[in-house]
Amino acid sequence: MIDLNAIDTAAPENENKKACKKKLKALRKQLFELQNMFYADNRFGLLVILQGMDAAGKDGITRHVFTCMNPNGVDVKSFKKPTEEELEHDFLWRVYPHFPAKGNIQVFNRSYYEDITVPVVNDYISENKIEHRIELINAIEKHLEQSNIHVLKFFLHISKDEQIERINDRLVKPHKRWKYSPEDKIATKNWDKYTAIYNRVLTENTKIPWHIIPSDNKWYRNYSVAKIIAQHLENLNLKFPDPKH
Amino acid sequence: MIDLNAIDTAAPENENKKACKKKLKALRKQLFELQNMFYADNRFGLLVILQGMDAAGKDGITRHVFTCMNPNGVDVKSFKKPTEEELEHDFLWRVYPHFPAKGNIQVFNRSYYEDITVPVVNDYISENKIEHRIELINAIEKHLEQSNIHVLKFFLHISKDEQIERINDRLVKPHKRWKYSPEDKIATKNWDKYTAIYNRVLTENTKIPWHIIPSDNKWYRNYSVAKIIAQHLENLNLKFPDPKH
Repeated sequence: MIDLNAIDTAAPENENKKACKKKLKALRKQLFELQNMFYADNRFGLLVILQGMDAAGKDGITRHVFTCMNPNGVDVKSFKKPTEEELEHDFLWRVYPHFPAKGNIQVFNRSYYEDITVPVVNDYISENKIEHRIELINAIEKHLEQSNIHVLKFFLHISKDEQIERINDRLVKPHKRWKYSPEDKIATKNWDKYTAIYNRVLTENTKIPWHIIPSDNKWYRNYSVAKIIAQHLENLNLKFPDPKH
Repeated sequence: MIDLNAIDTAAPENENKKACKKKLKALRKQLFELQNMFYADNRFGLLVILQGMDAAGKDGITRHVFTCMNPNGVDVKSFKKPTEEELEHDFLWRVYPHFPAKGNIQVFNRSYYEDITVPVVNDYISENKIEHRIELINAIEKHLEQSNIHVLKFFLHISKDEQIERINDRLVKPHKRWKYSPEDKIATKNWDKYTAIYNRVLTENTKIPWHIIPSDNKWYRNYSVAKIIAQHLENLNLKFPDPKH
């Protein structure tokens, strides 16, 4: 059983900011090339799922890691509070159209995992339904893999102190104030409840493994995520296909 | 194990054309009222899946059973040969957006079951993938039920002779010629292969039960399907909700 409280949120001691920033720079160049080849190769799709507490750095990852790629072939979808229309459907209905086609990389900033965490934290879902959603998500992720759509799942792991600091920053730093929402206060209040349900999801939704990324240090977080994606793409032995005749 | 060859395709002997046509007329009136209440009630969605051999009468059902309902709240989606764009995605991608919202009735004229039958008959799918698709469809149908979207599945069961006669009709009867496609010939040729895979699907995809409808007699087919749908809606104890304040 995963216990987030026992997992470090700070960068490992043998890593340092300057070196990681340098390595990230090289990775971004590599990712630019790899994504181009991924698009041309057209055998696989890639779904990148970003989850984490509020202020964990999901937006930061899309800005610092995916900006280096050609947006023709890369798309980011942020899942916010469901609309009234979306609530008239099953919870996968709003998600499904965004699963990527072959050749494409799709980033989910939040995802169907919020359809477990939010109802659990706010106490409006039965145990029976939680189990059903956990099972169904396992089945769907396995199905995507079987359909040559690979899934990379990241949990951006920050400490409670770091969350409080970042949310306070949103109140005072002019270039961050637009990110503040009154719900941020509630997020901090519900820290333990979120930790509990994330422990469960990180333990039970593992048909596709999670990458738990220590994220208190942004320079380490960005570097780690970029490295995992680059390694995954490297392992695919991507090729430029022969021209069509 | 279901064996379609052992199941009658003709109407039961105690039913007759005149009486069934009369009963269908009454059912259509009832369905008109029930669908209106289903829409107002807004607690459930309904997915009606029509499968069967070519010329089994899928179009006939939409015309003779669903025409009586208010098209605001009823929709028919026909799944044809997948497009190039659809083939770049997993097989559920083109289906998912059409799953109904609460209050709505969605008819699938063919469905994701074709993603099992067609590849099997044409021999371009592995046993491993067939099992995966059968399992996934079971999981998805169970999920729809859990999400208050009910699923009614009909297999319109005709004999090989009846199929040959109907396809020949398409060649000679002026008002049916538009339905003829060169693929109809191949359908007849593959009769036994389709029977074998349908036997399997009707046996293994039973998280939601199938209704196998003897369909050589159109008057019995239309009446039976209408009756099952009406009974299902009756059992929901639909209510007009109180007005919103």
